[in-house]
Amino acid sequence: MKLSGGRSFLFRIKEGEEVVEYLTRFLERNDVRVGTITAIGTLRNPAIAYFERGMGDYRIVTIDGDYEVVSLTGNVSMKEGKPFAHLHVALGDRNGRLYGGHLVRGETLVMEVFVQELSGGYLERKPRMNGLSLWDAED
Amino acid sequence: MKLSGGRSFLFRIKEGEEVVEYLTRFLERNDVRVGTITAIGTLRNPAIAYFERGMGDYRIVTIDGDYEVVSLTGNVSMKEGKPFAHLHVALGDRNGRLYGGHLVRGETLVMEVFVQELSGGYLERKPRMNGLSLWDAED
Amino acid sequence: MKLSGGRSFLFRIKEGEEVVEYLTRFLERNDVRVGTITAIGTLRNPAIAYFERGMGDYRIVTIDGDYEVVSLTGNVSMKEGKPFAHLHVALGDRNGRLYGGHLVRGETLVMEVFVQELSGGYLERKPRMNGLSLWDAED
Repeated sequence: MKLSGGRSFLFRIKEGEEVVEYLTRFLERNDVRVGTITAIGTLRNPAIAYFERGMGDYRIVTIDGDYEVVSLTGNVSMKEGKPFAHLHVALGDRNGRLYGGHLVRGETLVMEVFVQELSGGYLERKPRMNGLSLWDAED
Repeated sequence: MKLSGGRSFLFRIKEGEEVVEYLTRFLERNDVRVGTITAIGTLRNPAIAYFERGMGDYRIVTIDGDYEVVSLTGNVSMKEGKPFAHLHVALGDRNGRLYGGHLVRGETLVMEVFVQELSGGYLERKPRMNGLSLWDAED
Repeated sequence: MKLSGGRSFLFRIKEGEEVVEYLTRFLERNDVRVGTITAIGTLRNPAIAYFERGMGDYRIVTIDGDYEVVSLTGNVSMKEGKPFAHLHVALGDRNGRLYGGHLVRGETLVMEVFVQELSGGYLERKPRMNGLSLWDAED
């Protein structure tokens, strides 16, 4: 889908927020319907997921402790009439080892977020046979 | 090189495509000559590479199975008269361990891609003595 | 903070530069005060850090050798009257294993950088009780 640039947001989430809920509320409050998200920071007790195709569902791994958010990369589109953030994350431990996957949840210590709104189109997730909610594919 | 924003594209690649070939065709079809690419998704049997300076060539590592694309980060410029995507990738396994490097190839299961075109300049890769194709350096 | 797009820069840093110093000088020279940074490339002998909340300071890990910069993700804001780049990095070794955290320093072999300036607002880091320099948090 061809789009053009909309509003840009650069901000810090305060300590103690659940990051996925916070970002979803941010998108709703600002009426961001399509866009991209990147962030860096630190998360406590994050949960990440890996999609098991055989099961048609996510396998969730919770890793205790504080982790550097080396990258948080994602996009925004509509799902069931509301803005939905699909987010993947790479997390570093105190020895610099990395873990990551689909971001399920995590508590913010510091999170510096960039949201780039895109305008000129409507992008919606719809449930599929394989257990995922996906956009229509590009030809 | 100083540029300004061009078209934005946010789209899903359908299952079963070789991701680097698909993206290259996408850039050619849409005449995107300079820009950036980010993506998240899942890839099957990806191959990644590490540039060995001593050899002046890439060492390729293929990792079998399905991996979460935790981040795909890259840029678009011209090489031998055609749009060329230089892409790096971080990949997560079912236990949340990460692997990554220069993306050589991989089969899409799901891939959600953001391409940001940049306009106002021409950026070209040229072969260098060290075995890489690079832009002229800044300054 | 709500902003809008400014200038875009896509460029290569030449070999042998200390990457954090180079980027800081680039921002000063071009008067980029707020924005985002992404990059891919290769770094030699990078140093990464993990913020230890108990100590209120960074624990620094230096990893010798050449590493693929799988992702470099960060932002630009003002600190003590000058542009400041906050950068996180994921680094791949020759076997595709990843390491990462807050980027402290590293010598460029190849570094392809995208800087997106944002305009319409002023974002400043201020020292906090916890040892970090942070923006005011979003409500």
